[in-house]
Amino acid sequence: MLETQWDVIVIGGGPAGYTAAIRAKQHSLNVLLVEKDELGGTCLNRGCIPSKALIHCAKVWQTVKRAQRFGVFASEIKFNWDEMQKWSQRVVANLRKGLQSLLHHHGVKVAKGVAKLVEHNKVEIATKESQFTVAFKAVVLAMGSSPVKLPYEPEAPVVTEEQALFLPSLPKSLVVVGGGACGVELAWLFNALGIKVTLVEMLPQILPMMDAEIAEGLRQSLERQGIDFRTETKVNKILAQQGKAKVQTEKGQIEADLVICAVGRKPNSEGLKEIGIQINPNGSVLVNEWQQTSLPSVFAIGDLIHGSGTAHGGMFEAERAVAAIAKKLLNEPLPIDTAKLVVPLCAYTEPQALRVGLTEQEAKELGLEIKVARFPWRASGAAVATGETEGFVKVIANSKSKQVLGIHILGSDAANLNGEAVLTVSKGMTVDEAMVAIRQHPSLSEGIGEALWLTAGLPLHIAKSLSGRQQGWQNES
Amino acid sequence: MLETQWDVIVIGGGPAGYTAAIRAKQHSLNVLLVEKDELGGTCLNRGCIPSKALIHCAKVWQTVKRAQRFGVFASEIKFNWDEMQKWSQRVVANLRKGLQSLLHHHGVKVAKGVAKLVEHNKVEIATKESQFTVAFKAVVLAMGSSPVKLPYEPEAPVVTEEQALFLPSLPKSLVVVGGGACGVELAWLFNALGIKVTLVEMLPQILPMMDAEIAEGLRQSLERQGIDFRTETKVNKILAQQGKAKVQTEKGQIEADLVICAVGRKPNSEGLKEIGIQINPNGSVLVNEWQQTSLPSVFAIGDLIHGSGTAHGGMFEAERAVAAIAKKLLNEPLPIDTAKLVVPLCAYTEPQALRVGLTEQEAKELGLEIKVARFPWRASGAAVATGETEGFVKVIANSKSKQVLGIHILGSDAANLNGEAVLTVSKGMTVDEAMVAIRQHPSLSEGIGEALWLTAGLPLHIAKSLSGRQQGWQNES
Repeated sequence: MLETQWDVIVIGGGPAGYTAAIRAKQHSLNVLLVEKDELGGTCLNRGCIPSKALIHCAKVWQTVKRAQRFGVFASEIKFNWDEMQKWSQRVVANLRKGLQSLLHHHGVKVAKGVAKLVEHNKVEIATKESQFTVAFKAVVLAMGSSPVKLPYEPEAPVVTEEQALFLPSLPKSLVVVGGGACGVELAWLFNALGIKVTLVEMLPQILPMMDAEIAEGLRQSLERQGIDFRTETKVNKILAQQGKAKVQTEKGQIEADLVICAVGRKPNSEGLKEIGIQINPNGSVLVNEWQQTSLPSVFAIGDLIHGSGTAHGGMFEAERAVAAIAKKLLNEPLPIDTAKLVVPLCAYTEPQALRVGLTEQEAKELGLEIKVARFPWRASGAAVATGETEGFVKVIANSKSKQVLGIHILGSDAANLNGEAVLTVSKGMTVDEAMVAIRQHPSLSEGIGEALWLTAGLPLHIAKSLSGRQQGWQNES
Repeated sequence: MLETQWDVIVIGGGPAGYTAAIRAKQHSLNVLLVEKDELGGTCLNRGCIPSKALIHCAKVWQTVKRAQRFGVFASEIKFNWDEMQKWSQRVVANLRKGLQSLLHHHGVKVAKGVAKLVEHNKVEIATKESQFTVAFKAVVLAMGSSPVKLPYEPEAPVVTEEQALFLPSLPKSLVVVGGGACGVELAWLFNALGIKVTLVEMLPQILPMMDAEIAEGLRQSLERQGIDFRTETKVNKILAQQGKAKVQTEKGQIEADLVICAVGRKPNSEGLKEIGIQINPNGSVLVNEWQQTSLPSVFAIGDLIHGSGTAHGGMFEAERAVAAIAKKLLNEPLPIDTAKLVVPLCAYTEPQALRVGLTEQEAKELGLEIKVARFPWRASGAAVATGETEGFVKVIANSKSKQVLGIHILGSDAANLNGEAVLTVSKGMTVDEAMVAIRQHPSLSEGIGEALWLTAGLPLHIAKSLSGRQQGWQNES
């Protein structure tokens, strides 16, 4: 199966890695993908996918509990965590099988084993059966990241954000440490299932990467749902006490049956420095805008350069790395520079939070004169018809150029609106351009249209003077 | 309240009418909106909104019934049609109240009464209290449409598509006559609630305005759900027989407890011809591209010119009519011509069907060389995680210019993807332009991205040779 010399070796079969392998193959390069564990990486096996499957189960649970409002009645309503786990594992198995067959159909060769870069053009591969060295013209490193662990006593009941998706049984109470997307999603999931959840975050804002107003709106909503937030609170250590955990913070102790560490991820960059690859102080691999490391034949993508990155960001980096490799090996032209494309971010809570483009605070830090408008879902027919009226759409535009700089959404189904927001912001549309489009009525997409109209001073289903009750938004004139 | 001379009088307070009134007010024109019934027109009071609210109730019903798959259990599951009606009416009342306050905030004066155009510059208004004539500089006619009725015996249990939303009790069996969006949605709704439903359509295809493949996919799905389709079947008459209905078709009789006529709508254009407004043979009002009728001071929008149109299409026509009036009365510049904007169409069944831009058959009739690609939801992580894997995204692009001509979606939550599809098609993006955007993973928006990649010959999560099992799609090379 293994040839002596490969055009491209990709190390790591997560979304970034397998995308790189498929794209390289589409350039007719011969490619070997090496994965030490399961194909699909963190995202598919112990990240985005199982968490979204479990979150869906919890949403079904909430729908069943609240179905009376919609004329649907049931008794003895209960859920079974084991069955939810089974659904999640079925989803993962289904997609993993699909990925395997996909790589086969695309003609990507896959080796199961541990790959170690030993020189600028050689990889040592250890499979179950043997160990050997192969040469390459270019290598794409996509080894991902691992959860950062907080200091804790060995007996303390502490799990990582990954392990939290596979709990054998549910605790009565838990502390989630870390208020990023992952921590907030896990807090929502377990709170929805009736567990007493406390979320501890060092910074004053949960979801620090999101627009502050969206993050604050989500926090308020989650507080109403029962989550106890402790922001500006640093965890020192987690102690064990009679099978329970005691989370020691600067502001006192919190006791719980279980602690989930969701404090971020560190790049799996061990051993790279030794062969001459430059590593940033935080452990991430230094790359240029085409994902090239300090060794010209070595490219790095995904969490290896971000720590806690996104699957879609990593997949895009794979495209760029392969474009650069195709230029290098085949002298194919580079695509028009797309380095400035926006990476959407989403928290899959209920309501969901979406960030596309600049946040209000970022736009202000850049010294831009901006116009901000918010459209509340309670003024949307589509949202009212389903009873999902929490949250709002926020549009940020440049006052002078009228360019849409950011679209941020708090609301049910916000994630599926990302494409519209991404096209608007990344194609550099002005408010007028994005506004002049006929959006389906009733649909949530209208919420983006309404916020754009408001930005242009032409509110339709909201009057300028209307002030928000639920979220505290105000419409600027 | 009434002044003798108004800049603009709008007759009809549906989505098209109230949008015209608000937009005219935003041009600082003094505006009177006359509505004979409830504000919100057909859409809000007896169309899109109550039907979507009921459809949501039926979706909740299905979610509860199928919750076991996701680890959620209940017994004695039942639904109550009266309670579903109450939800729907609460939604309508909420939005109607919002609309009233909205018009107030926007400064639009509303008169409740019957308005009759009597001359090219005069309207007779009959309110509860009085009757009077007012003059105007321009009038916008937005009187909407009414359901077309089939010939039926007076005792036969027959209701219109509007009345079907307010049934006092549910029948055991029903026949829906008409396979447009409205008929198909009602068929889905009542079938989901356990009623035996037969849908009769004169044409060979249900949803004749949709891409044929999407319509066929939906039909197959709805057949699997239990709906009995009789296409290419013309209804002659509906007879009464012992409290039941006998639907006489060219191909035999169908018996049912109730018949819903959803065979289209006719414009409410009575009396307009008499004052010199040109009317098309089908009863619709003839207008130019700025919605102007044959009387220069008279504009017409919405269902009055379409019969069975869309709310969002009507609202867009309102924008155009008001732009033309502002040009006429205030000499304001006309906007850049936007007459070619695409109007999305959606059927809110489960799965939903969405049409944006040209269908495959239309593109072929225009003699265009096209490239077609389909991405099945079963290859999407977001769809697999929720178990909603029916259907596919279909992209149609011009082979030469690479412009995206149409995006068609069969799938759960297709409606909310309309904005992304509309921006892509109406802004004239090429496949390459639309493809190069980072879409959130996992989200349904990725389905559009995947279909675009496939169109460009760069499939990612689908291999070219993969052929569909569920829907019979094939990926063209």
